[in-house]
Amino acid sequence: MRFSAQVHVTLKPTVNDPQGNAVLGSLHTLGFESVEAVRVGKYLTLALDAADEPTAKAQVDSMCERLLANTVIESYETVISQT
Amino acid sequence: MRFSAQVHVTLKPTVNDPQGNAVLGSLHTLGFESVEAVRVGKYLTLALDAADEPTAKAQVDSMCERLLANTVIESYETVISQT
Repeated sequence: MRFSAQVHVTLKPTVNDPQGNAVLGSLHTLGFESVEAVRVGKYLTLALDAADEPTAKAQVDSMCERLLANTVIESYETVISQT
Repeated sequence: MRFSAQVHVTLKPTVNDPQGNAVLGSLHTLGFESVEAVRVGKYLTLALDAADEPTAKAQVDSMCERLLANTVIESYETVISQT
């Protein structure tokens, strides 16, 4: 069966986010003074084959642990749907 | 009022995604042969002040148009929630 996976990789809340701070500064420069905080993360969509949804979920979690996220400083969330 | 905005910025479907292709190759090398496609995008969370939700939505859409997304090759989706 064919599945689609949506993966969000975000910096843990206590980790400094220089990219987010740079975006925040640029937004202020552009006149968007009302913005108070920006955090930047990654959003990945994967297409994969698996026997069933739990197997697909386990595979994607394993991909996050081994490659997609640096779990020392990042968290990840995965959503699997059949396509 | 204080709002939280979730912004997804993704490459348009017809645009080549070298970063996604690199991730796909690495996943295959790691043994995840069942993955068929990977697309990599950005996921931003913003905290901002606005008078009401439509105003917040309009502001965030404007930020996407002017800074957060390159609308020639990228699409964006925004979700606003009150915090």
